[in-house]
Amino acid sequence: MATALIILAAGMGTRMNSDLPKVLHQIAGAPMLVHAMKAGAALDPAHTIVVAGHGAQAVEKAAQAYDPDAVIALQSEQLGTAHAVAQAREALAGFDGDALVLYGDTPFIRPETLAAMAAARLTHDVVVLGFDAADPGRYGRLIMDNDQLDRIVEFKDATDQERAVTLCNSGVVAANASTLFDLIDAVGNDNAAGEYYLTDIIGIARARGLSATVVRCDEAETLGVNARAELTRAEAMFQTRARAAAQEDGVTLVAPDTVFFAHDTVIGRDTVIEPNVVFGPGVSIESGATIRAFSHLEGCHVSRGAVVGPYARLRPGAELAENTKVGNFVEIKNAEICEGAKVNHLSYIGDATIGARANIGAGTITCNYDGFFKHHTHVGPDVFIGSNTMLVAPVSVGAEAMTASGSVITRDVPAGDLALARARQENKSGLAVRLFDKLRALKAKKGK
Amino acid sequence: MATALIILAAGMGTRMNSDLPKVLHQIAGAPMLVHAMKAGAALDPAHTIVVAGHGAQAVEKAAQAYDPDAVIALQSEQLGTAHAVAQAREALAGFDGDALVLYGDTPFIRPETLAAMAAARLTHDVVVLGFDAADPGRYGRLIMDNDQLDRIVEFKDATDQERAVTLCNSGVVAANASTLFDLIDAVGNDNAAGEYYLTDIIGIARARGLSATVVRCDEAETLGVNARAELTRAEAMFQTRARAAAQEDGVTLVAPDTVFFAHDTVIGRDTVIEPNVVFGPGVSIESGATIRAFSHLEGCHVSRGAVVGPYARLRPGAELAENTKVGNFVEIKNAEICEGAKVNHLSYIGDATIGARANIGAGTITCNYDGFFKHHTHVGPDVFIGSNTMLVAPVSVGAEAMTASGSVITRDVPAGDLALARARQENKSGLAVRLFDKLRALKAKKGK
Amino acid sequence: MATALIILAAGMGTRMNSDLPKVLHQIAGAPMLVHAMKAGAALDPAHTIVVAGHGAQAVEKAAQAYDPDAVIALQSEQLGTAHAVAQAREALAGFDGDALVLYGDTPFIRPETLAAMAAARLTHDVVVLGFDAADPGRYGRLIMDNDQLDRIVEFKDATDQERAVTLCNSGVVAANASTLFDLIDAVGNDNAAGEYYLTDIIGIARARGLSATVVRCDEAETLGVNARAELTRAEAMFQTRARAAAQEDGVTLVAPDTVFFAHDTVIGRDTVIEPNVVFGPGVSIESGATIRAFSHLEGCHVSRGAVVGPYARLRPGAELAENTKVGNFVEIKNAEICEGAKVNHLSYIGDATIGARANIGAGTITCNYDGFFKHHTHVGPDVFIGSNTMLVAPVSVGAEAMTASGSVITRDVPAGDLALARARQENKSGLAVRLFDKLRALKAKKGK
Repeated sequence: MATALIILAAGMGTRMNSDLPKVLHQIAGAPMLVHAMKAGAALDPAHTIVVAGHGAQAVEKAAQAYDPDAVIALQSEQLGTAHAVAQAREALAGFDGDALVLYGDTPFIRPETLAAMAAARLTHDVVVLGFDAADPGRYGRLIMDNDQLDRIVEFKDATDQERAVTLCNSGVVAANASTLFDLIDAVGNDNAAGEYYLTDIIGIARARGLSATVVRCDEAETLGVNARAELTRAEAMFQTRARAAAQEDGVTLVAPDTVFFAHDTVIGRDTVIEPNVVFGPGVSIESGATIRAFSHLEGCHVSRGAVVGPYARLRPGAELAENTKVGNFVEIKNAEICEGAKVNHLSYIGDATIGARANIGAGTITCNYDGFFKHHTHVGPDVFIGSNTMLVAPVSVGAEAMTASGSVITRDVPAGDLALARARQENKSGLAVRLFDKLRALKAKKGK
Repeated sequence: MATALIILAAGMGTRMNSDLPKVLHQIAGAPMLVHAMKAGAALDPAHTIVVAGHGAQAVEKAAQAYDPDAVIALQSEQLGTAHAVAQAREALAGFDGDALVLYGDTPFIRPETLAAMAAARLTHDVVVLGFDAADPGRYGRLIMDNDQLDRIVEFKDATDQERAVTLCNSGVVAANASTLFDLIDAVGNDNAAGEYYLTDIIGIARARGLSATVVRCDEAETLGVNARAELTRAEAMFQTRARAAAQEDGVTLVAPDTVFFAHDTVIGRDTVIEPNVVFGPGVSIESGATIRAFSHLEGCHVSRGAVVGPYARLRPGAELAENTKVGNFVEIKNAEICEGAKVNHLSYIGDATIGARANIGAGTITCNYDGFFKHHTHVGPDVFIGSNTMLVAPVSVGAEAMTASGSVITRDVPAGDLALARARQENKSGLAVRLFDKLRALKAKKGK
Repeated sequence: MATALIILAAGMGTRMNSDLPKVLHQIAGAPMLVHAMKAGAALDPAHTIVVAGHGAQAVEKAAQAYDPDAVIALQSEQLGTAHAVAQAREALAGFDGDALVLYGDTPFIRPETLAAMAAARLTHDVVVLGFDAADPGRYGRLIMDNDQLDRIVEFKDATDQERAVTLCNSGVVAANASTLFDLIDAVGNDNAAGEYYLTDIIGIARARGLSATVVRCDEAETLGVNARAELTRAEAMFQTRARAAAQEDGVTLVAPDTVFFAHDTVIGRDTVIEPNVVFGPGVSIESGATIRAFSHLEGCHVSRGAVVGPYARLRPGAELAENTKVGNFVEIKNAEICEGAKVNHLSYIGDATIGARANIGAGTITCNYDGFFKHHTHVGPDVFIGSNTMLVAPVSVGAEAMTASGSVITRDVPAGDLALARARQENKSGLAVRLFDKLRALKAKKGK
């Protein structure tokens, strides 16, 4: 059945003490909203409606960065969850499939859980996601009537008997879209807060003879984030799982607690990750690579047998082929490092192709920017770039060519040539000693 | 009332296993002694007397680095806490205000606590700082007689009934200075250790009809440090609090446990701190800045919207204006980076001014040191410094000027000029291939 | 008595999910196998036999890297521990001393424990290493008969009474080599797994009237590693101990949890280690040095008073004399830095000698590699190397010489000379502004 996601993301998040809309605070390098969208994406949704309020423009931008087809429905006033869902009605006009209500500040729902909800929809009109709470506290309680969900009771309205129930409401709901909006129309705001509560739809549905049921998930999946301390806990929970999962997949983590994964990091078996490595989004690493200590990777691919770091920074567009080496204090950006090539020390390689087996000397810089445009550097296979060579792009160095240390290369170097651009060395006899003496005397004078 | 601080700092700290006097071991980048001095500074003391013994010279230097008016009183022999306090008498001759006894190895007393003691002094002759101990163990017990403190009983001298008391002595005491020294005169050393105990003054004071009371603080405030493991625990306690406080203030910490604050770090709201960032003393950061992973900052100021790192090192005197960028493997020292300027890669900028919107190419170095003196580099606004430019200070580059990549700039560059200092590139035909062949042959020969 | 170690290292370690043989997974920078070999080395063994199966070649290489005299005995089929030990028989033909059976995946046995076993051998024919288990679970139980070890009972064969015993079997056994092999000959495989169990030798020995006893060790010593999560726990256990030991030795660790030691790291008293420091194997540091944050050290020696980092990388062969400084983004490899010399910023010093008190400017690179060979650079005492100097090895700079910033030094520099290799600076009037205008216009045009 076609599905539409309705993701509630309008809350201000006062307790975050931040100008950034709450749902844009990140976990593992992605806004919480995107985590919710990613979970929902497993249902291959026909529509994704993000209900935004505070910072709606920023929320729209983030949502569409992940899914360009995501639509923003504006909730100008925050009048409760049912009211929020109602804002999606217009965007879903004429849509006859299922609607699934998710939350932009609840990033850990698993795709498998949502699939179970979709399956339950085949037999029930309304499906609510619930969890058995270790400490039910003030959560809303799911009151069952045999296998039917009878109603959702808010804690403050619950009887002692109802409070004894440990099956709690996550807020996530699935129903046919038309049914959902019909039910919401019947929700009132005759309560202390004067808000329209989405939870009320269950009682209404049951009163209308519709069937409702509960799909259970792990309590951890329903973790919502309302304050920075909770965000920290969520990030820690993500990292703990990611580290354990990597180890189960056969990745060697020397000090797991010091490795930070992004939401989409992919690492192959028997790759070794040393302490203090940070992964930004978009990194994939094949089997048998080595990522040494203090490395930082984002948006890059590292192939089998490559050795990265220590202190290597791979930026978006870095593509390391097999058996390449990128060493310390080296930055690679938007550059292909072909098989067996080495960039071992203190270099900046940006907007470049480095040929197979090329050796890039220490201190090499691709001068890719003229203040206005970026240009490409091409280095052929088996090239030897001498230390501290400046490759002023656009420029090309042919196969098996060489550059002399300290050269500024502004013109193409044909294959097999040695390019040289430097002044002749002169040794000025005794001049250093005379300079030292002069400076020493000056210093002594000033010292007085 | 005028207050004098008497800070006991003479102990050897044998258990530290260190040549450094115990009170000079650091927490959050400041000696423990300075933490005690900072707490006391909230009372705006007229005098600060540090009673030093072991390593007195080093202690004096550290004390005066924080407060040039701090006076050292030498305690040559360690004959007990009352004896230590007595060493401050001479330095306070003629002083008629209050004396507050603090400890150089007790760094966590809060200013608010000392203010409460000062307030209690308005109604009582002697005020002792106490705490309700979770596990009173071998602490001295504060024995109350209604709202009066009757006496302090050392654990070993305490009856079972007294040992059942959980209100314990922190050692911190306030009294009129003359009263304090008079009481100390009456303290004897007729005990197993042959020491003069400051705790004895309470019984003496009460016997003389003086009033005494207790101000309570949190047990954690009274944490004393006697061994390295305790120092580690104290550091961890400081960091835990500093991280929580930053988060409450609206700072975004991606991985709080990997961020190390100094005692005086100030960070604005919505500034993002990525994993693995270390703050030395003297750092202030405005709102909305980004400090990326693996950065190290000391004695610097970072303005709104600036982006620092990853792998940036800001040393004392680095001043980053709004929307500046300091990138990877860049060191900034005693330099002003004006609004919108960028130093993105592999550079050393020391003793310099970098003008607004200037772009400093990768590998740029301000050659600020001639072996004897440091010199200043001035780069004007909208300047483009080509990669690997050496700016040999003193030197000035005018507005909208440019330097060619790989140039050594020894003379001033007028505004709008392009400065160039490099040799012409020659491509020696086929020479690289011939060199490779030669080396390959040599290697083959050696390999035999 | 002469001792032979028999180290069982043939297991595949399926649960590791790795192509690397289990015993080669590392703890603190050394394969687990080497940890076992190091413990056994305390007995000064006459023979070390490593029984290998899966990945035997790699195991042999690792074993012989630590001890060139180690001998590999191949166990082609894994038919149980007694069968594994039997494979060592040939290698020990004619050997009449003691045999000690250790395990390549049990890295924490202490040398003191093995010494205690050797001592117990003076009075007993067979000595088994046991431990009092906090939770005996499914361990084999050591059943005592007064001071004699009567038998080892596998958990699944144990009676309730036997299961109540908490003294458990570590698997480590010592006996005269001939006795051991004789006992093993009598072991059968009439059990569910069809394996030959080493544990059976105790019952056999006792039946033959031989004496057997137990030496007890701490349970933690017997920790075996079978999965990556256990490896992580073992690494964490090692690090926790190493950090505590360093602190007891008087090393100052600002944030112990962020410092990673290797199995052989040696650090002197009052050396300060800042947060985020990683030690690879082979590091020794004298007293009173400072290792700043984000530093990475392997195979190097740092002398008294030296300051390393932040962001310094010392590679194998780096020798730092007293009061040297190696600063940020600096890599030192196979180089001697003599007393008082400084390499403060952004440099690569490899295969070099840097003389006493020499000052190496920022961006200096020793061009030690020509694509085929490595060459040496010699810098004399009191030399001043200007920023961004390329020292093209082999090359020598004499005492009190100087190089001008940006020079490529290809020929030796005599003592006291100033070497200069650079082009004259030209300021092309107004050219920068014209270039900016041109690029700006081009950008505007492209933007349309």
